[in-house]
Amino acid sequence: MIQFALVSEEISLPLALTMGEPAGISGEISLKAWLQRDVLETTFFLIDDPNRLAKLSHSLGLDVPIKTIDIPSQATNVFHLGLPVLPLDNSVRSNLGIPSVDTAGTVIESIEKAVRLTQSGDAAGVVTNPIQKEVLYDAGFAHPGHTEYLAELAGLKFSPIMMLAGEHLRVIPVTIHISLRQALEQLKTSEIIHATQVTYQALKNEFGISQPRIAVAALNPHAGEGGTMGNEEKTIIQPAITSLLNQGIEVLGPLPPDTLFSPQQRQTYDAAICMYHDQALIPIKALEFDQAVNVTLGLPFVRTSPDHGTALDIANLGKANPSSLISSINLAAKMAAQRKNC
Amino acid sequence: MIQFALVSEEISLPLALTMGEPAGISGEISLKAWLQRDVLETTFFLIDDPNRLAKLSHSLGLDVPIKTIDIPSQATNVFHLGLPVLPLDNSVRSNLGIPSVDTAGTVIESIEKAVRLTQSGDAAGVVTNPIQKEVLYDAGFAHPGHTEYLAELAGLKFSPIMMLAGEHLRVIPVTIHISLRQALEQLKTSEIIHATQVTYQALKNEFGISQPRIAVAALNPHAGEGGTMGNEEKTIIQPAITSLLNQGIEVLGPLPPDTLFSPQQRQTYDAAICMYHDQALIPIKALEFDQAVNVTLGLPFVRTSPDHGTALDIANLGKANPSSLISSINLAAKMAAQRKNC
Repeated sequence: MIQFALVSEEISLPLALTMGEPAGISGEISLKAWLQRDVLETTFFLIDDPNRLAKLSHSLGLDVPIKTIDIPSQATNVFHLGLPVLPLDNSVRSNLGIPSVDTAGTVIESIEKAVRLTQSGDAAGVVTNPIQKEVLYDAGFAHPGHTEYLAELAGLKFSPIMMLAGEHLRVIPVTIHISLRQALEQLKTSEIIHATQVTYQALKNEFGISQPRIAVAALNPHAGEGGTMGNEEKTIIQPAITSLLNQGIEVLGPLPPDTLFSPQQRQTYDAAICMYHDQALIPIKALEFDQAVNVTLGLPFVRTSPDHGTALDIANLGKANPSSLISSINLAAKMAAQRKNC
Repeated sequence: MIQFALVSEEISLPLALTMGEPAGISGEISLKAWLQRDVLETTFFLIDDPNRLAKLSHSLGLDVPIKTIDIPSQATNVFHLGLPVLPLDNSVRSNLGIPSVDTAGTVIESIEKAVRLTQSGDAAGVVTNPIQKEVLYDAGFAHPGHTEYLAELAGLKFSPIMMLAGEHLRVIPVTIHISLRQALEQLKTSEIIHATQVTYQALKNEFGISQPRIAVAALNPHAGEGGTMGNEEKTIIQPAITSLLNQGIEVLGPLPPDTLFSPQQRQTYDAAICMYHDQALIPIKALEFDQAVNVTLGLPFVRTSPDHGTALDIANLGKANPSSLISSINLAAKMAAQRKNC
């Protein structure tokens, strides 16, 4: 049984799932997510090639009927019968494990359609399967990644913010895919303020937390211990906290990073703003057994994504784990329902 | 019942516990550790002022008889009757929460005695209660910390190595109490090699792991992703790994830091060598509910310590948690028994 009740009294709009890199595990985990539909809190449709998925389902020995649909609203009606697929303009020919520039156009088409259908009110939100960026670059894709592309499609002027959300913890890295040395050089008060503001609004509007409590991590061990182990706490982070408090945003910090993620301290905040990639990613991956979700905050629509890559190395083994995709679907459903209520 | 069987067939030597900072929680957690003697795997004695402890026990409402002993071997015989205390030369007058330079001499005397009695074969190992370094500095103490002082007492020529050990994870930070910026500047191939060698020997000789598997963390996100996010993996870490492999030490790395501490990956190694303080401390404090132990590797005797400070702020509240001290006692007992068997 689909547990609609948790999301909304009325039948919800389906979510739009993108194809992702067809040479990776996206197809497999999407099929497996449908098989686990009793733990899903909404329906979804995949924007993909129905024939490709039927073959994939057969070759993996999965019992997943493929239901080709013409418009998103059909997804909810047929969802109990099979995986609803909204076809791409062209068929997708791909070899598992071997990404090709030939399919790059269809990967992008799937993302564009998902965004368009969400913006037009036909889908509740976008759940993106992982892509292989290098292949898209070779095909002329000019965005650093998925998120920046979505921001452009949405016409955003500022950068969206990445949150990783799990059952035990929500973290937001202020600097992301740069070296640790660059993270130290590029850490800015303004970016900490921006990330915290966007997080605060999202916690209110999409997570339903009326008075969000946000922890801001320090950069140095023991939060610099009064300046004896680094002064970025004083020069960069504290000014951000002062500004945020003046805006009425309840923030605590800069807090010593090592104790911030202990079981006791995790009870004291709703999200932690982190200064660099691994400060955020180490604790969430240590604590969340494959179930963390990548959430993009600050877009005009809901977007979640599994917290893993295309996993080309296991793409033809049939052992991909759909847990993070399932968590992504369920979180997107909750966020979309919450957003609608605001 | 004391579970001697887990440690040794014969009656083990008791461990020597130091007093630590008398204004902090050391006395309280030592009393509470004795109260939980049914989970201890050995006996111990505290090197402290028996009158001070009797008063403390009374004021905290704890039912802990204090048994003054003359020599360590008496500890095992009286342990079931009360907490064995080997007196310091002078009485200790201290106010909880307010450390004073007046007691610094006794703090140091307790450490020295514990080391001497362990080196003479009268105690199985040293478990140090937390100290307040600033107070010792004011009294002329010239060592950066506990560990360096112990190294000098032991006549060591090279630095000992800090391991944090818990039920789920063992981590060894190569750089420790310096800013993140300094950690980047000071990270050296030779230090990674030294830390790994010392860890390897300790895993064999003190943890009883015949073929230790050691993971070496990368420094940058995704291990630098082929040099696009930092090159310390190539210039500093990989040369250490190559050298260690040539020495016959089984090391894996440099491994992406974010996934290194996931439940799956933790199964693949016995200890993780980490490049900076929080890379090691964040995951262990996230995973170990107050039970991580600070272990000093590379000393000629066993030394463990609780993974927390003096907690001056709660020193007179009676709510200090003895879990980490109890884990420190039990781990020291196991390590001492293992070392004896080598």
